[in-house]
Amino acid sequence: MKITANNPEKRSWLHIEKNCDFPIQNIPFGVFLTNEDITTIGTRIGNYAIDLAALHQLGYFEGIPLTDDMFMQDSLNDFISDGQTTWRLVRNRIADIFDDKNNKLKENKKHREKVIFDIDEIEMLLPVDIGDFTDFYSSKNHAMNVVSMFGNALTPNWLHMPLAYHGRSSSIVVSGKKIRRPKGQTFPKGEKSPVFGPSKLVDFELEMGFITTDANKLGKSIDINETDAYIFGMVLLNDWSARDIQKWESEPLGPFLAKSFATTISPWIVTMDALEPFRVESPEQDPKPLEYLQQEGKNSYDIKLVASIKPKKQKRTVVSKTNYKYNYWTMGQQLAHQTVNGCNVRSGDLYGSGTNSGSKEGTYGSMLELTMAGSKPIKLNDGTERKFINDGDTVILKGYCKNKNVRIGFGECKSRLRKAK
Amino acid sequence: MKITANNPEKRSWLHIEKNCDFPIQNIPFGVFLTNEDITTIGTRIGNYAIDLAALHQLGYFEGIPLTDDMFMQDSLNDFISDGQTTWRLVRNRIADIFDDKNNKLKENKKHREKVIFDIDEIEMLLPVDIGDFTDFYSSKNHAMNVVSMFGNALTPNWLHMPLAYHGRSSSIVVSGKKIRRPKGQTFPKGEKSPVFGPSKLVDFELEMGFITTDANKLGKSIDINETDAYIFGMVLLNDWSARDIQKWESEPLGPFLAKSFATTISPWIVTMDALEPFRVESPEQDPKPLEYLQQEGKNSYDIKLVASIKPKKQKRTVVSKTNYKYNYWTMGQQLAHQTVNGCNVRSGDLYGSGTNSGSKEGTYGSMLELTMAGSKPIKLNDGTERKFINDGDTVILKGYCKNKNVRIGFGECKSRLRKAK
Repeated sequence: MKITANNPEKRSWLHIEKNCDFPIQNIPFGVFLTNEDITTIGTRIGNYAIDLAALHQLGYFEGIPLTDDMFMQDSLNDFISDGQTTWRLVRNRIADIFDDKNNKLKENKKHREKVIFDIDEIEMLLPVDIGDFTDFYSSKNHAMNVVSMFGNALTPNWLHMPLAYHGRSSSIVVSGKKIRRPKGQTFPKGEKSPVFGPSKLVDFELEMGFITTDANKLGKSIDINETDAYIFGMVLLNDWSARDIQKWESEPLGPFLAKSFATTISPWIVTMDALEPFRVESPEQDPKPLEYLQQEGKNSYDIKLVASIKPKKQKRTVVSKTNYKYNYWTMGQQLAHQTVNGCNVRSGDLYGSGTNSGSKEGTYGSMLELTMAGSKPIKLNDGTERKFINDGDTVILKGYCKNKNVRIGFGECKSRLRKAK
Repeated sequence: MKITANNPEKRSWLHIEKNCDFPIQNIPFGVFLTNEDITTIGTRIGNYAIDLAALHQLGYFEGIPLTDDMFMQDSLNDFISDGQTTWRLVRNRIADIFDDKNNKLKENKKHREKVIFDIDEIEMLLPVDIGDFTDFYSSKNHAMNVVSMFGNALTPNWLHMPLAYHGRSSSIVVSGKKIRRPKGQTFPKGEKSPVFGPSKLVDFELEMGFITTDANKLGKSIDINETDAYIFGMVLLNDWSARDIQKWESEPLGPFLAKSFATTISPWIVTMDALEPFRVESPEQDPKPLEYLQQEGKNSYDIKLVASIKPKKQKRTVVSKTNYKYNYWTMGQQLAHQTVNGCNVRSGDLYGSGTNSGSKEGTYGSMLELTMAGSKPIKLNDGTERKFINDGDTVILKGYCKNKNVRIGFGECKSRLRKAK
């Protein structure tokens, strides 16, 4: 089916500011609470949130096979479960409804009042009910930075498969929710035994996440050439990390409480269809991976990523600029690897890319790397310094794709760190 | 509230065989499919499955505040979410309905036909919708066996906290479901690079799991002295493991695909209330753990555990006999640790104990330990030998508590391993 919604010539009758992340070519999906306390599934165009349940009830999706309550839900799981054809039909139709050549909704004031909300009037919620969360470790730059900092080398498996660990689903929150500095066990230098207290080294990790549909039954694998059909879209993801807790707990079972206190994601899921024009080749892989991980063509995406820190009542300072395309392992490889043992993938599952780091200073996706484990503090615009994240700081991730025709963005993924309690 | 259901003098008007795991003092909770294809929440007495939705509809829970559809669900999550008072009221009432001094249901044939099913007529389903699965590593014997086999020592953190990793929720199946030998990457001795194919070292892990209710909001910890109120009950758990995949992938992020191909749990959740008479002290802890992990009194349970292997068309052979009480870390310590960083725990979450191993030969909870990594094969009753689990083998876990008055059991947790596909 043709993705007509991507037509770069298309203009909307809704006002869209220049450099907005959400032109009519984006049409992401999310869940929001209206000013009347109703939870609904929606999209965003410019600074307007569009209530898809209202559009559906008013008949604007006529001809598309959708259950009556498809958009009257508190998560996108059922919609995502319906599969790629449904996503495309709905996204194409939305682009059509808001096309400036289409007067139907544009000239129906009553309908417009039911469907269109100012973005400031609504509250974004978590877009999916996340069954399982896997966090990969797919940036070679990041992995090299981390291991060399502690005088180590990459483990020999790193170049042969996209390494990952299972994450915690319950503590994933949507952008805007404040999180709390975790307490836990650490074993600082100079102590004779572990101590308990608030983490002193809270860090962000600049990641992207992708969200799947129901893909396979338990016991069956997904062929790498078929993975595209099972990926619905992407979000920004901050994999909050407590480095001192992580250091003490991680051997031999991997990160646990150092990560499970919070993970923040951006509220609008940008579809793979919208990102299609921004496909690029992924880095060359040497050694060549095993056959189940081999793929051809352009399997990465040119997504510019920016991380900033905003101290309380101060302006933000950009601390990192990088790109998703630097990742060594692609989403297709990650999904093929995840399922090669027969593990089943469900609608609403979240897969983190791992920290996105470039190869140069200022392109690293965590404070651990940016400050060389705290040895080279970063200066913020307000004159203060940061080794890691302070109480009251807000970490803001942004991401967008841009070519000469169009800009497709993810909005923001932000969370303020509150002091330990 | 008094747990009247535990009265050891109580007898049921339903026939219960000697040494049955499910006397009237047990009253576990599960979900089953009736012979009319209706999914319902139920309990088990003797060899009878009791439809709690039908009992509720017929008014047998009058006076207990329950929503109308509380038991017309495909998971126990809502019931568990209702909390300890509801669990006790319902369990006490069930014990009363089936008490041989109570004629109400006993003498109402029409009601009995709607409520009581022969256990062979119904199909057990997964009892909970598992949001998050954490697998602990809390048997010191098991940990010592594993590390010493490879010439290592316990990592220094082991004695200071209950180590764990996040597991995969999607691939948890109920007893009786066949599972498939996983394929994956391994790096066998003598090879120059990793190879792909079916795992050659599929193992079981004899574990118990506990299931929680909604316990805390994100950012708040649970005090160790309050953990009891948040644990609904326990199941048997087989943490299937592919040792060759595990060996190659686990550093530095812990086990991933070596575990995520399948986890089997027993269908009936035995409540902590039913297990109350079997509380015992846990092993002494040296060094003394940090304050948030300190507790007094009897915090473990005397649960006898048995693992058997049954080759296709052959009888089973018992390969391990051990006890849950040998675990170094208790459920209370596990839950306090899980939440000390503010991680939120929800209704239906599953927490595995880790492999239960005793200190003597024949009490180890995995083939890895029982056969010394395959170097000392086990002889089965049919004359064949096992280093690990063969295609066609069924692994059966059993568990029960017994004192002079009563036996409270878990039934079986079994799965057949099918050949790789």
